[in-house]
Amino acid sequence: MTTLSMINAAATRLMGHARHTPLLSSPFLDEMAGRRVLVKPECLQHTGSFKFRGAWSAISALPPEIRSRGVIAFSSGNHAQGVALAARLHGVGAVIVMPSDAPELKIANTRALGAEVVLYDRANQDRDAIGTELAQARGLTLIKPFDEPQVIAGQGTAGLEIAADAAALGVTQADVLVCCGGGGLTAGIALALDAQAPGLRARPVEPEGYDDVARSLASGRIERNATMANGLCDAIVTPSPGEITFPIMRRLCGPGLVVSETEALQAMAQAFLRLKLVAEPGGAVALAAALNRRDDIQGDAVIVVISGGNVDPGVFRRALDTL
Amino acid sequence: MTTLSMINAAATRLMGHARHTPLLSSPFLDEMAGRRVLVKPECLQHTGSFKFRGAWSAISALPPEIRSRGVIAFSSGNHAQGVALAARLHGVGAVIVMPSDAPELKIANTRALGAEVVLYDRANQDRDAIGTELAQARGLTLIKPFDEPQVIAGQGTAGLEIAADAAALGVTQADVLVCCGGGGLTAGIALALDAQAPGLRARPVEPEGYDDVARSLASGRIERNATMANGLCDAIVTPSPGEITFPIMRRLCGPGLVVSETEALQAMAQAFLRLKLVAEPGGAVALAAALNRRDDIQGDAVIVVISGGNVDPGVFRRALDTL
Repeated sequence: MTTLSMINAAATRLMGHARHTPLLSSPFLDEMAGRRVLVKPECLQHTGSFKFRGAWSAISALPPEIRSRGVIAFSSGNHAQGVALAARLHGVGAVIVMPSDAPELKIANTRALGAEVVLYDRANQDRDAIGTELAQARGLTLIKPFDEPQVIAGQGTAGLEIAADAAALGVTQADVLVCCGGGGLTAGIALALDAQAPGLRARPVEPEGYDDVARSLASGRIERNATMANGLCDAIVTPSPGEITFPIMRRLCGPGLVVSETEALQAMAQAFLRLKLVAEPGGAVALAAALNRRDDIQGDAVIVVISGGNVDPGVFRRALDTL
Repeated sequence: MTTLSMINAAATRLMGHARHTPLLSSPFLDEMAGRRVLVKPECLQHTGSFKFRGAWSAISALPPEIRSRGVIAFSSGNHAQGVALAARLHGVGAVIVMPSDAPELKIANTRALGAEVVLYDRANQDRDAIGTELAQARGLTLIKPFDEPQVIAGQGTAGLEIAADAAALGVTQADVLVCCGGGGLTAGIALALDAQAPGLRARPVEPEGYDDVARSLASGRIERNATMANGLCDAIVTPSPGEITFPIMRRLCGPGLVVSETEALQAMAQAFLRLKLVAEPGGAVALAAALNRRDDIQGDAVIVVISGGNVDPGVFRRALDTL
């Protein structure tokens, strides 16, 4: 179970390695949202998403003799890049298991970050079996994407930064909207805020059709998405909240918010226009909620986490088309 | 004449108002540039460019009884927005004189930042006469875009930040590439580095065809551009270096660098892909030089200032097309 002391310890391990991202703002966004909007751009984090925090936290927490044998992760996206770079910076090997039909650019990027990419055939091969066999044969440690206490602790360091930086700006009462997939970032931030900024309340934001966390919070038990078909917001889509993350979110988070893909694209366009930031669709859902769910949010200010910016040019063009 | 103590005083006045922008990096850019690349994203500054620093510095330095009568600026671009927001945050009026054929969006943005926009007919009216008449009638103070000691001092605060942040990253010997128009930012940064980080050397970067500063540094006297026809990099094009900025640059800067518009667009695409930043063409020329003028740059590291990010979606699409 992740605790505040684990988050504080992760913050110490991340110091000088992960970026302390700022809180940005624009009078134009304040006007659109009807309240003060503070934006935490985790797209500016190393590898373009918050995932580097959790990866660094988990890898740096391993005993050196275990770490030196290397790590393994299953991912074709932001978690893969975070683990690849964090492993390289620790001087240890990383194996990333990806489907063979993953975008060429993501495969190339992950390799360029120093990882060994192992491809599998989605139709005919069992990813977990391949990973388990590799891990056992080579003594690799699996770095899970969210349901892992040290990963949650790493993501929670973003919450410590929010607590400190919001207080410095005079904001002590606000909803903190967090783009949410499996809940690692949301749960980590919620734990940090609960301890350091009790007037700030984390709230998960998801895309329509993939609102497993919002429904789970409403029903009080883990609900699943009907489909995992790849939507625009694929970076933050998981089948269901985690077994470790959900109880944390249930205890500490406000109700979930849900936005459409069009609203996510429009929010990307506003991030371009008003903040000069590149957000990916899944990374823009929290900003979309701030701009479009005014009556469902409490307080004179709202804090928004942009969770990542790894977006293809073609999708970015679709966002610009909404202007 | 701007001095280090004026820059330090400006930094004190800007504290809590302007953003201290970070130094960002990407292993992919290091690879492309053949050396370590540190990027200072002034596109994340308020109003999307470094101009807010100089505007705040100049307005905050006015005696209160003068300031309260309001300020005036001639600009259709980044300087206008910087002056408009800085004036509004000081609670004083701003008049911005713009050509009537300026883009509608820029006029609307400047008005939305609280300024009174006065339009003039480029063909039949004399901008300076209109401005002088307005300033005299209403007691407004003219805030010049670059050739003004307190404006240079404000831009120089970016140099103080570079000196401190580069040292913290272990970089004490490097060229500092600065997107250069009239030279306010370049001269300000050069002054700050000369005092605080003597191993860091400012170097102006300009677009092809508008390389008045590079030629002036080479010849030792103020040279003019042959044309002011609007290029892609219009945000940083001026007829010639300033009478105040040029002697500073001549004394302290290394040789100028020049890049093509295509290289600027390609650099915007790399800022999108690798840094998740929105840069405007003129704001990307320094990054373009780092990526394309490897042999003209000295040292194991290079520092690059992205000066602004106020770019139309159509131009941004052209940058994405280079990928």
